[in-house]
Amino acid sequence: MAPMIDRREFLRALAAASTVVAASKFDFAQGTGRGLRVNANRLRESLEGLSVFGRPEGGSFADGVSRSGFSDAAVAGRNYVMQLMRSFGLGPRIDAAGNIFGSTAGSDPALKPILFGSHIDSVLSGGNFDGDVGSMSAVEVLHTLKERGVTTRHPLQMVIWTDEENTFAGSGAAAGLLSAADLKRINNGISTADGIRKLGGDPTRLADARLVAGAIRCYLELHIEQGGVLDKANVPIGVVEGIVSIDRYEVEIHGFANHAGTTPMKERRNALLAAAKLIEAVQNVVMQEPGRQVGTVGRLEVFPNAPNVVPGTVKHSIELRDLSAEKIAVLGQDIRKLAQDIAKETGTEIVMEKVEQHAPAVADPAMQKKIEEAASRLELKTIRLPSGAGHDAQMMAKVGPMGMIFVPSVDGISHSPKELTHWQDCANGANVLLQTILLIDGEA
Amino acid sequence: MAPMIDRREFLRALAAASTVVAASKFDFAQGTGRGLRVNANRLRESLEGLSVFGRPEGGSFADGVSRSGFSDAAVAGRNYVMQLMRSFGLGPRIDAAGNIFGSTAGSDPALKPILFGSHIDSVLSGGNFDGDVGSMSAVEVLHTLKERGVTTRHPLQMVIWTDEENTFAGSGAAAGLLSAADLKRINNGISTADGIRKLGGDPTRLADARLVAGAIRCYLELHIEQGGVLDKANVPIGVVEGIVSIDRYEVEIHGFANHAGTTPMKERRNALLAAAKLIEAVQNVVMQEPGRQVGTVGRLEVFPNAPNVVPGTVKHSIELRDLSAEKIAVLGQDIRKLAQDIAKETGTEIVMEKVEQHAPAVADPAMQKKIEEAASRLELKTIRLPSGAGHDAQMMAKVGPMGMIFVPSVDGISHSPKELTHWQDCANGANVLLQTILLIDGEA
Repeated sequence: MAPMIDRREFLRALAAASTVVAASKFDFAQGTGRGLRVNANRLRESLEGLSVFGRPEGGSFADGVSRSGFSDAAVAGRNYVMQLMRSFGLGPRIDAAGNIFGSTAGSDPALKPILFGSHIDSVLSGGNFDGDVGSMSAVEVLHTLKERGVTTRHPLQMVIWTDEENTFAGSGAAAGLLSAADLKRINNGISTADGIRKLGGDPTRLADARLVAGAIRCYLELHIEQGGVLDKANVPIGVVEGIVSIDRYEVEIHGFANHAGTTPMKERRNALLAAAKLIEAVQNVVMQEPGRQVGTVGRLEVFPNAPNVVPGTVKHSIELRDLSAEKIAVLGQDIRKLAQDIAKETGTEIVMEKVEQHAPAVADPAMQKKIEEAASRLELKTIRLPSGAGHDAQMMAKVGPMGMIFVPSVDGISHSPKELTHWQDCANGANVLLQTILLIDGEA
Repeated sequence: MAPMIDRREFLRALAAASTVVAASKFDFAQGTGRGLRVNANRLRESLEGLSVFGRPEGGSFADGVSRSGFSDAAVAGRNYVMQLMRSFGLGPRIDAAGNIFGSTAGSDPALKPILFGSHIDSVLSGGNFDGDVGSMSAVEVLHTLKERGVTTRHPLQMVIWTDEENTFAGSGAAAGLLSAADLKRINNGISTADGIRKLGGDPTRLADARLVAGAIRCYLELHIEQGGVLDKANVPIGVVEGIVSIDRYEVEIHGFANHAGTTPMKERRNALLAAAKLIEAVQNVVMQEPGRQVGTVGRLEVFPNAPNVVPGTVKHSIELRDLSAEKIAVLGQDIRKLAQDIAKETGTEIVMEKVEQHAPAVADPAMQKKIEEAASRLELKTIRLPSGAGHDAQMMAKVGPMGMIFVPSVDGISHSPKELTHWQDCANGANVLLQTILLIDGEA
């Protein structure tokens, strides 16, 4: 575990180096900051370097990664990131939730830190851009500022959040939203508590990882869009208006396991037939009205799962998303009603339990304008759009003003090894992140 | 491995004991055989003894067993059966396919053996009667004959077949129908070849396990019905007319794995939605015409199987059964056509491959009459019925005249821990098996 960075100690060191700070401030005020650009090649190299952790055996960059939040691959990937940080003198700190922080002091002790970052964990069979682009760009921004000798007025903090894809454990803990039940939940064979321990955190001291409301000047996250809006519109930068709300349900269907040869069709209580009807019901309910809402049955398990046995039990997920929490609540109720009809029709029992609920998170309007101004400096077109995917930024919206920068995903593909964001778009995103930070830093 | 029993050696020993043999023949001819009954308590004890192998930890008899053909539980169960055989001097022999044989010589060296038995492997989460009743009754029949000093004219052979539920490896090898491809196939984590080795067989010498057509006088199998016909009709003995044909297909559906939040409903290529439609199509095709045909999707796997990913790939089984092979061939074609419509509708690719085909097996009419005559001796009512389940007997129908005795399954439940056949029905079945053997043995 890396040594803790004492903020007061840094501020003392900075005060001692006040001349240098003043010079930097002067440079920035004169517009040197406006011309600052990240090292695009170095950003690409760090993304390629990260891509080997969780890569399928014998595969290449194009084969993506399986790097779930608490896997050995995630630990190895995190070590790689911390090594990069140390390479330019940025000492990593792991907090009680396993989040990796890297901090530089600002010249004005009265200002709160500007926080920015993302995650490096992936879904199973995921790609090399989801989370990674924002994470490595955060490192690159601090690396660029360091080598150019720029000291900002605000303290700067980069962060790699713990297990975004499954539990939001890292940003959830920071927002004070990780419950005891969350800690016990098992994903990919490991409980969240044990996972946090594995990453060097301490689940018994999560309060230490808490960022109280108002603790930060703002939170910024660069991320790939994961949808096809920017790619289709041929616009390099998306300014996120807000993150959709998500309701997750767990469904258990209990029929009766019986011999597939001797049980007449009419006497079956087939849990998989009921699940098939429910999967179609989810599709129909979600598509029955206009809008951008989506609904997905992504995980499904059959018991006992043998060709010659009528399925007795099926367990599956249902996930609903929309900017309107009210809309998906109604969709959930509609699906629940149809589930009871299907249960009657198939002679099964269907239990549908809401297991997760993420409220929508609105991006701060002033932050959206700053991102647009930064993109304008770089002569990059922008459009505003919602995020259909959940992000750590939704947790940080509870702590301070939140802004998100999107870069295009080719063909809107994500959560797949085929996920692709062109290197130029990655660099554009990192530069917009850098310029947004400098713009905010230049404020009173 | 148990020592081989040399048949000629036994015949020499029998010739030396001709007086005893003659006495037994005399007793039998005088009707002692007609009054012979198995020891019902001992049969129950042996079934209860067998039930502990593969029982869920901490469970009871009512919790059933998971004793797949090549599991450690199967090995332990087989050892238990062989110990029972040895307890009354019946030396077990394991053939090259892992089948367990127990043989007693007959008094007439010119006669072929009467073969009878079943299997002790189970499906995952199966019951304590499927296979076990016929297997332990076969042991009990020989035990009864041994302790009563009865020597039959025909040699008698009991058999416990290898892995009936998944591969029919034992009876398949005996019928010369186990292919090199079958040996490579992996079920429950082990290839058939390795499984056979684990049971003490030798997959490189399967020809030694072959029973050529005409090698046996007949094959008899006692089995639970696994359907509800006998139970509903309140008839204790079923006389099987034939075993249905089975077609097994493997389906692979390829869509595109993508982010469940950012991929609009209309742009998805959702493999699980396609599978849901295909599961309903199987149900509809099978039920669209009258008859006893059945169709089942019993095994299904989703990839990558995460709540927040649109499923990219689904693999599942389809199984069709009917006494008419032609009928299920047509049903398979109908399903295949609908699968192509579903593929178009959902933007997926659906590949449906026939991986197994079991022809129907007709029970020998003369054997059916012998079973009815045996039941009549015991004053047990009978009805004739087809078997919706596959049995080792279907393989043996290729080797010699085949007959099957069914006993009732309460509520028709099978392939489930709730599978139940009353002890009296087990004993009835064993007695019908014994009397059928003696009736056949009494023929010229």
